[in-house]
Amino acid sequence: MVRSYRQKNCPVARALDIIGERWTILLLRDLFLQGPRRFQDFQESLAGVAPNTLSARLKAMEEQGLITRRVYSDHPPRLEYHLTDKGKSLGPVLKALREWGQRHC
Amino acid sequence: MVRSYRQKNCPVARALDIIGERWTILLLRDLFLQGPRRFQDFQESLAGVAPNTLSARLKAMEEQGLITRRVYSDHPPRLEYHLTDKGKSLGPVLKALREWGQRHC
Repeated sequence: MVRSYRQKNCPVARALDIIGERWTILLLRDLFLQGPRRFQDFQESLAGVAPNTLSARLKAMEEQGLITRRVYSDHPPRLEYHLTDKGKSLGPVLKALREWGQRHC
Repeated sequence: MVRSYRQKNCPVARALDIIGERWTILLLRDLFLQGPRRFQDFQESLAGVAPNTLSARLKAMEEQGLITRRVYSDHPPRLEYHLTDKGKSLGPVLKALREWGQRHC
């Protein structure tokens, strides 16, 4: 978690402390729509994200239990990122954003 | 709109171009929960927001049609911010964030 709103009594603020940083919701979107993703998949999808920012977001999401990393090749070693059950529980948030974007943007 | 994800074919990214900047969703939350708010009300609620950031967020929200300003006193002149119908249409997004925050944070 990079920055906190420090409003621990508000569930909206607590949620945004976890998913409110720039790029995080689009990373979740990719995982919902595309399934397991590699680091370079995110880079291709999210033109404009700096590699160190992408690393930081993925690390924070893993620390928060939203995603896990799995090795899918030993030689050479390759990793892919998966949504956890906690990550999947964000489906309604993504759905609400998608529906609002479809209607109003 | 300060920064765009430049993913105009994605409704989630389009929605975040409008409400994804830091503080914007908490400003919407205050307007949903408290009704019309003055600048200083937001400053008190959102400890940590810089006045110029707050001004920029409110201006962008007004430009996007999410809020309007109304004069509620002439002497001295005082303004308050209200949600528009477009702003109110973000209710399901706020609700999804609140429910996720209550369950998982």
